[in-house]
Amino acid sequence: MNKINNIIREEINAIGGQELFLTVLQNSELWKKSDRWDDQKVDNWFKTKLKNDTELGLGFTHEEPLTALMKNYINSYKDLPQYVYQIQTKFRNEMRSKSGIMRCREFLMKDLYSFCRNQEEHDKFYEKSKQAYLNIFARCGLENITYLTFASGGVFSKYSHEFQTITKSGEDTIYVDKNKRIAINKEVYNNDVLENLNLRKDELIEERAVEVGNIFTLGTRFSEALGLKYADENGQQQNVFMGSYGIGPGRVMGTIAEVYNDQDGLIWPESIAPYQIHLVDLRSKMDDQFYSILQKENFEVIYDDREINPGMKLKDADLMGMPYRLVLSDKLNGKVEFKKRSGKEVSIYPLKKVIKLLK
Amino acid sequence: MNKINNIIREEINAIGGQELFLTVLQNSELWKKSDRWDDQKVDNWFKTKLKNDTELGLGFTHEEPLTALMKNYINSYKDLPQYVYQIQTKFRNEMRSKSGIMRCREFLMKDLYSFCRNQEEHDKFYEKSKQAYLNIFARCGLENITYLTFASGGVFSKYSHEFQTITKSGEDTIYVDKNKRIAINKEVYNNDVLENLNLRKDELIEERAVEVGNIFTLGTRFSEALGLKYADENGQQQNVFMGSYGIGPGRVMGTIAEVYNDQDGLIWPESIAPYQIHLVDLRSKMDDQFYSILQKENFEVIYDDREINPGMKLKDADLMGMPYRLVLSDKLNGKVEFKKRSGKEVSIYPLKKVIKLLK
Repeated sequence: MNKINNIIREEINAIGGQELFLTVLQNSELWKKSDRWDDQKVDNWFKTKLKNDTELGLGFTHEEPLTALMKNYINSYKDLPQYVYQIQTKFRNEMRSKSGIMRCREFLMKDLYSFCRNQEEHDKFYEKSKQAYLNIFARCGLENITYLTFASGGVFSKYSHEFQTITKSGEDTIYVDKNKRIAINKEVYNNDVLENLNLRKDELIEERAVEVGNIFTLGTRFSEALGLKYADENGQQQNVFMGSYGIGPGRVMGTIAEVYNDQDGLIWPESIAPYQIHLVDLRSKMDDQFYSILQKENFEVIYDDREINPGMKLKDADLMGMPYRLVLSDKLNGKVEFKKRSGKEVSIYPLKKVIKLLK
Repeated sequence: MNKINNIIREEINAIGGQELFLTVLQNSELWKKSDRWDDQKVDNWFKTKLKNDTELGLGFTHEEPLTALMKNYINSYKDLPQYVYQIQTKFRNEMRSKSGIMRCREFLMKDLYSFCRNQEEHDKFYEKSKQAYLNIFARCGLENITYLTFASGGVFSKYSHEFQTITKSGEDTIYVDKNKRIAINKEVYNNDVLENLNLRKDELIEERAVEVGNIFTLGTRFSEALGLKYADENGQQQNVFMGSYGIGPGRVMGTIAEVYNDQDGLIWPESIAPYQIHLVDLRSKMDDQFYSILQKENFEVIYDDREINPGMKLKDADLMGMPYRLVLSDKLNGKVEFKKRSGKEVSIYPLKKVIKLLK
C-alpha cells in the first residue's frame, strides 16, 4: 500500500500537487452551505457526536472543508492555480460492502482538488492529470488494460473521465476502442455519444472493468456555495473554478491482485511488491547469513525461517507472490536456487551471481 | 509528517516490526469482551451507526481488533514472538482539544503491539523498544532533551515508560536525572519510587515536558479477554503475553516546532524538514533554471516565484524554516546567496559550489 501511495505521490507532485492531510471529522456548517449535510441528500454519511451533542460527520469526500480552507490562501489571480491533495481514509455508509477491499465502507483515497481562474486554466490541468493518472496505473502494472473512459458529466462538463481496468470481476461495463485506447462507460453509451467522440460501434468491444480512478470538473459548484473567490486582473471578484481527481489505492491493490495471479497465488509486479525477494530456508540448520547479506545489499527480503515442512514454505512463497524466490537447501552446497514468480525456470547460482542478476 | 512516519517505520522494522493497517470502525462485540465498550467505562468513544442501526465505534486504540485478528496467526509457541504496528488515525472524544496539534480529538498514531510467550520474552523486546524509541526521537532532533521516564504501571508491571521531551509548553511535570538520563513522572514521584530506582532527590531537576511516546506492559489482560492462546512446547494452552507501544507523529512534529524556532519562525531539523532548500527568487525576471538544476540534483526544493515584494518572500522563508535558504537576485551576477536557517552567516557562491556544499 505504501508503495502504491508513493507512486501516486511522485506523479501528482510532478504535475504540481501539494500534499496535505485534512480531518475525517466534519463540521456540519460547511456541508449545509453546499446542501450536502442532510441524509436525504447524501445517503452515505456516517454521523457521530461530540460530548456536547454537536453532530459531526465522517468525511466521504473533502470538497467542503478544503474549499473553506483555501479561502485563507486564495485572494488574487496571483494565488492561482493551486493543486492540493491528500491520501486519507474516507468513510461511506454503504448498505453493503462487498468484493473484499474493492468496495469498503472505510477506505484510503487519494483525493486531489484543483483551483483555477477559469475553465481554460482548468482544462490544461485536467489534461495533465489524465497523463499523470495513466503514468500511475502504468507504474502499478496496469498499463495495457487500463482505459481512459468517458462517463457522465455535470453542469460544467459534458463528460467526466474514469480510468477503467479490464478484469472479469469488474462491476462496470465499458465499450473499448483498443486502437484509440479510450472507452465509454455503459451508463452514457448511446449513438449521440459515439458520434460526439467519433467512435464506431463496430470497433468497440464490451468488457467488464474496475474503476480505479476518476476525474471530474466541479466548476464553481463549491466555490460559489462556500464563497471561495479571487480578484482578477481588473480587480473583479470571480468564483474559483474547481476540479476533483480521485484514486483509491486499496482498490488499485485489489485490481492488481485480480489481474496478477495464477492458481498458486499472487504475482506482485516489482514496482509495488511488498518485498522483492522471498528467501525460503529449507536447510536443516538455518541461520541468518544469507538474509543479512541480501539486506546489506539493500534488497527488500522476506525471510521464511519458520520451523515447518518445506512444502508449506514453498506453497506460501507462491501464495504471497513476491517477484523473486530464493531457496536455500542442504543439497545446494551453499549455492542458491533462483526462480521468478512469474516464470517456470529454476536456476542454481552462487549468491554473488544472484545479487548481480537482481541488480 | 511523512518523514517522521518513515523514520518510525525504519526503526520499528529494524526491531522486527511488521506493518499493517486496521480499520477505524470498530465492532462492539470485541470491546464488550474486554469490558471497554460501555461509555461509563471508556469516556472518550466516538460512536456511529450502520444503516441497519448497528452501533460502531471509532477506534481510540486497537488492542481488541488486533488481538482478535492475531488468533488467525498465533496457534503455537513457534508463531511467537510477533511485533505488529500501524500508523493510523485514532479518534478520542475529549471534552476539550487544545494546544494545536498537541492534543486533538483525531490524530495519527503509531501503535505497536507485541505478542510474546511469557514475561521473559516480553521483557527482551520491551528493552529493545526503548532503544528504538530513543533512536526515533534522536533522528527527529530531540535527542538530548528526551528522557526515558518512569510512569504508573499496571497489573503486570510496576512501571510503564514514557518518553518525555523537555519544553516549557509541556503539559507534564517530570523529575530528571541528567547524568543517568532518566526521569520520573510527577504522578508516581515519591520516596519509595526514588529508592526503588536508586535516584537521589537532590540530583533531580523539575521540568515541564511533553510525552512524545509511551510503552506499556499489557500482560494477558487482552489475550485472556479475547481468547488469544498458544500451545507451548508441552502442548499446554497459554495466554499470549502482550505489550503496547505508542508514538503520536503529530505530537512529535508539534514538539519539534516547540523546540526548534526563533522569533522569525520555525527551524526544521534536516531529517524531517519538508524541503531541504528554500529557493527565493528576487530577480526582476524569474525563470525555473536554478530550480530545475537543483531538482535534477535530487534536492528537495521549495521555489518561491510569487510576484510579491522581496521582504515578504524572505520573511516567509524564515517563517517556514527550511534548513537552507538560497536567494537569487539581479545584484548577484548569476551567483547564489546561501544561508543556513539556523545561522547568521550569509555567503555568495556560484551554484556549483552551493551544490557541492549541500551534498
